[in-house]
Amino acid sequence: MIIVLKPDTSKKDETAVLREIRKLGYKPHVMRGVERVVIGAIGDERKHQTLETLVSWPQVERVMPVQKRFKLVSREAHKGNSTITLPNGTVVGGKKFVVMAGPCSVESEKQLLTTAEAVAKAGATVLRGGAFKPRTSPYEFQGLGEKGLKLLAKARKQTGLAVITELLSEQHAEMVAEYADILQIGARNAQNFQLLIAAARTGKPVLLKRGLSMKIDEWLLAGEYVLANDNAQLMFCERGIRTFETYTRNTLDLSTIPIIKNESHCPIVIDPSQGIGKASLVAAMCKGAAAMNADALLIEVHPNPAEAWSDGAQQLTLEGFAKLMEELKPFIAAAGRE
Amino acid sequence: MIIVLKPDTSKKDETAVLREIRKLGYKPHVMRGVERVVIGAIGDERKHQTLETLVSWPQVERVMPVQKRFKLVSREAHKGNSTITLPNGTVVGGKKFVVMAGPCSVESEKQLLTTAEAVAKAGATVLRGGAFKPRTSPYEFQGLGEKGLKLLAKARKQTGLAVITELLSEQHAEMVAEYADILQIGARNAQNFQLLIAAARTGKPVLLKRGLSMKIDEWLLAGEYVLANDNAQLMFCERGIRTFETYTRNTLDLSTIPIIKNESHCPIVIDPSQGIGKASLVAAMCKGAAAMNADALLIEVHPNPAEAWSDGAQQLTLEGFAKLMEELKPFIAAAGRE
Amino acid sequence: MIIVLKPDTSKKDETAVLREIRKLGYKPHVMRGVERVVIGAIGDERKHQTLETLVSWPQVERVMPVQKRFKLVSREAHKGNSTITLPNGTVVGGKKFVVMAGPCSVESEKQLLTTAEAVAKAGATVLRGGAFKPRTSPYEFQGLGEKGLKLLAKARKQTGLAVITELLSEQHAEMVAEYADILQIGARNAQNFQLLIAAARTGKPVLLKRGLSMKIDEWLLAGEYVLANDNAQLMFCERGIRTFETYTRNTLDLSTIPIIKNESHCPIVIDPSQGIGKASLVAAMCKGAAAMNADALLIEVHPNPAEAWSDGAQQLTLEGFAKLMEELKPFIAAAGRE
Amino acid sequence: MIIVLKPDTSKKDETAVLREIRKLGYKPHVMRGVERVVIGAIGDERKHQTLETLVSWPQVERVMPVQKRFKLVSREAHKGNSTITLPNGTVVGGKKFVVMAGPCSVESEKQLLTTAEAVAKAGATVLRGGAFKPRTSPYEFQGLGEKGLKLLAKARKQTGLAVITELLSEQHAEMVAEYADILQIGARNAQNFQLLIAAARTGKPVLLKRGLSMKIDEWLLAGEYVLANDNAQLMFCERGIRTFETYTRNTLDLSTIPIIKNESHCPIVIDPSQGIGKASLVAAMCKGAAAMNADALLIEVHPNPAEAWSDGAQQLTLEGFAKLMEELKPFIAAAGRE
Repeated sequence: MIIVLKPDTSKKDETAVLREIRKLGYKPHVMRGVERVVIGAIGDERKHQTLETLVSWPQVERVMPVQKRFKLVSREAHKGNSTITLPNGTVVGGKKFVVMAGPCSVESEKQLLTTAEAVAKAGATVLRGGAFKPRTSPYEFQGLGEKGLKLLAKARKQTGLAVITELLSEQHAEMVAEYADILQIGARNAQNFQLLIAAARTGKPVLLKRGLSMKIDEWLLAGEYVLANDNAQLMFCERGIRTFETYTRNTLDLSTIPIIKNESHCPIVIDPSQGIGKASLVAAMCKGAAAMNADALLIEVHPNPAEAWSDGAQQLTLEGFAKLMEELKPFIAAAGRE
Repeated sequence: MIIVLKPDTSKKDETAVLREIRKLGYKPHVMRGVERVVIGAIGDERKHQTLETLVSWPQVERVMPVQKRFKLVSREAHKGNSTITLPNGTVVGGKKFVVMAGPCSVESEKQLLTTAEAVAKAGATVLRGGAFKPRTSPYEFQGLGEKGLKLLAKARKQTGLAVITELLSEQHAEMVAEYADILQIGARNAQNFQLLIAAARTGKPVLLKRGLSMKIDEWLLAGEYVLANDNAQLMFCERGIRTFETYTRNTLDLSTIPIIKNESHCPIVIDPSQGIGKASLVAAMCKGAAAMNADALLIEVHPNPAEAWSDGAQQLTLEGFAKLMEELKPFIAAAGRE
Repeated sequence: MIIVLKPDTSKKDETAVLREIRKLGYKPHVMRGVERVVIGAIGDERKHQTLETLVSWPQVERVMPVQKRFKLVSREAHKGNSTITLPNGTVVGGKKFVVMAGPCSVESEKQLLTTAEAVAKAGATVLRGGAFKPRTSPYEFQGLGEKGLKLLAKARKQTGLAVITELLSEQHAEMVAEYADILQIGARNAQNFQLLIAAARTGKPVLLKRGLSMKIDEWLLAGEYVLANDNAQLMFCERGIRTFETYTRNTLDLSTIPIIKNESHCPIVIDPSQGIGKASLVAAMCKGAAAMNADALLIEVHPNPAEAWSDGAQQLTLEGFAKLMEELKPFIAAAGRE
Repeated sequence: MIIVLKPDTSKKDETAVLREIRKLGYKPHVMRGVERVVIGAIGDERKHQTLETLVSWPQVERVMPVQKRFKLVSREAHKGNSTITLPNGTVVGGKKFVVMAGPCSVESEKQLLTTAEAVAKAGATVLRGGAFKPRTSPYEFQGLGEKGLKLLAKARKQTGLAVITELLSEQHAEMVAEYADILQIGARNAQNFQLLIAAARTGKPVLLKRGLSMKIDEWLLAGEYVLANDNAQLMFCERGIRTFETYTRNTLDLSTIPIIKNESHCPIVIDPSQGIGKASLVAAMCKGAAAMNADALLIEVHPNPAEAWSDGAQQLTLEGFAKLMEELKPFIAAAGRE
């Protein structure tokens, strides 16, 4: 931790800061600059009580942390790339590029099975589909619940796809884990730490979406909640951040691909459907993500987007998805993936 | 709902849109403009399936909702101002300006009681204090849990203050409701709808903080989850939004005071401590909030902010709080409050 | 400047950094922490070439500046409050609260004179009005140009109001300075440094609006361009920043009032009309600004907002303005102003 | 334009709105919905005075524009892709993928020529380099001015590269146009309309960077200023927007590639150096941009980034650039470019 004192701080006020630093378990180290005194407080910032509150002292101008706060998710903790193997043999984070696809919401057996078969045929290996839906308004469709989970399980049996679905409530953790191969934590719950802990404890792989206004550092720390609760099967999923731009639903931040790869050993998945919110822009975002070496894509596909019960504007048709899968091939190859 | 077709849409493509509008339960109304055809779809946008997915059709340029999506929280639903009466007689939303104050976290009996007595003496009527803390990092202090709730209850008994504390987990709803007079839903959980429903069902007053990147409309809709679950005792609490600015912790958006007053009948509370993140700026924000006719303030106060276990930088000292309460008086009076 | 090295940096790589620090004119000071080596580089960060580029070295994790980059605008440079006296005796930054008011654009003699007389009667002492208008679209009204300036001068003569108007082009600096008492630099030009220099060199007082996405630090530095070009008559004007919120035109950041007062000796003016974009919310923002001790307000007023040639939605009527001026009095008094 | 009236608007108030609509030159068309009356105002929104100010009327809830405000830059105005041919034969917007590279600032003859030769050898066909630099602080290096322009011309002569450099001041437009093949308008001046007009009038190709908080619509309209001033040689350049994220300098929004391609006929260029601010992330962003079918890249390259006079952190080394050019090839090919 670096503590910057205000210009013209008296010796007495400086001494008080040094005393407090020692009291909190750090060793102070003073540097006298041209205008300001700067104090390095040496010690493990994660173990001791934080020094940041020193900022409330009148003589302190700024406190700057030096260490990164995340640990288990960090690249330093694990030099190689972590991979996650699903029951159907799909490996996320390995040599093979993975595509997860399916409808925004599970609506009916017919809708789900039609989609599952089509995406499997086109090359996807994981089926997405929401059974519990977090909706901005209480008057919107909230998902089929356990009935939706059963349909996902049926689709898995029939197609061989693995299943990813969203976990919305701590109280559903066991139930959802019974049916799903990956538990998805949505953007609105990305800092619902109780839910993260509940998800981690099921032992199932967890896909953690980035919150709408979550900094990289906070996202990694939210992931840390999963690993710190004895579950190393974590994937990060970028799904767009909220900015001033209104042309797109969100601003899909593809720079997260190299950043997560630099900072963490966990796989990075890109969700262009939520990220951009317009089906006509999804294909281009997928190509960019593949070229930038994302580990997987999470794509919304629906047999008839115009009649979807949620988020129709961003779902691809079955034909659109099949076409995209063809178009992606050269980019996946160029990125050295299969 | 207004549907704008692309220029040069064929008659056939237009007819298909009209058919779909009727199929979804709306009555279409066509207007031929200079370059574009615009269709009004008449019907209750909240009752029918949404037409927004029409945007996925190639001939559709834009779909614009006309109705507001919130209902029970709206000023139209209830012309007067709703008030919330707490067991100690405090009325939020009434003639009297309310101050809620106390430490960020409950740390110890001594810390809490000292603070409670001081804030009561200075004129606060509600005690705040976190027993369950949502922390960005799993390595930070997570709160005393039920022990903290018991200390809050003790402080209430001793001082006559009402108690507000954060609810973090659906599974704690009953327990927290047993001790607290107001359940606080934090910014990170502002769209954790399951938690909102659980809070609503306890029957206790709910204070809903605005999420870090929540639009006004989404905030009102999150509040709608509370009222739609048979709990009319809802307060909105602005606590700063996330912007590009890094000088302050968040950007405290005081325009929410007149906006919530215009759009809703529920009280509006301002939290300048979280909102601004620097104790030295808190007093000015409080004066602004009082002048703009907020119903209440939620202020962090600690006997020794530099040694606080969380968020020391933004907590006022006991003396600072007492001084602020004095300074606020003329502004509260100028706003026509007591 | 603080330079943080990556964990496990070799002695050789550390030495290379130390050598570079010396080469760039700083004195290095090494601190060995638990995981990382931290180097303080002692020297005036404003005088020497910046060390920030060291971040491009592979062994460097982070470079953190210690000094503030602004100087002449800083409170440290001038302990008291700077005041600006206009030809008609109005003092901005003094004991008296100042109101600047008038139409968004100068449209006609009648429109301007009617407004000028009304705002003068209600208590304003400065007349605003755009003669050159920066419009998002080239097809919108661009202002009356010099004809507008002449009308402003006429209104000044007739009412005794001082005149503030926007400077859009370096090439107009002399012409606008001939007519205006204050040159306004708009949000879109807040980092048009050539324009700032041209404005400064006229010797007239300059009102610098905050850019739509300008950090406090950048705003102060833009102001520094004015003072560094020998013009000390600078006012800062908050007019709302761009955020994700779409309910209001911008998010008016009232925390800038105490912040600018802390960091700088220059007056701070609040523009609620641009800041919020809705006439119905302007009065509340004005009360907040007065209570928070702003030095002045800049308010858009129009005899018939619905027929304004620009930004009608945010302009007050003459009656609305007169009513507001009455309502503001107790808040100005409570803030200890006149 | 669509005008939404408030619920329960009286017949009289409705009639007043209809009268005003007619007065402003539009034909009103009334639709009676379930709760609200909606009025379509038919007419060319770009030609007539805007109706948006109707929002200031108490009975009006919302006014929503229907037409797009840009015209000459729109894809509708010109179905094909516009291309821009530079004196050295480089075509931007054509079949061939273009790379523009060079130092952030022109610092010396040696620095510039070394870089120019290296980037030409690696495959770039346009040399970038700032002679006039817009710097946040007045105490930072402001560029070599005309001397820098002369060095750029010399480098062009020696290498055959075309030259792009920034125009900062209307007063330099002719001078810069004399030396440069493309005039760059920087992010801070993206809505400095006077500068845009001055640049357009030189007749030289103009590269318009996106402002830090510029919406797509505003960016297109800024471009409209160039075309409306008789210069059709316009390129858009995405260089990152300002968001809450602090890990990267800006958030590079690659979705602008398909969006600009959809909305406009003008080429789209990506600047990953400014966009991301960290040399180590530049290569990945370039791959994404190439895969997503950008027309060109604008990359900062410096012989010794650590000693650069500006923005060293984001500049590639000569070797780094050569390596990147090799790595890009398969992605350019996969996107169907050369």
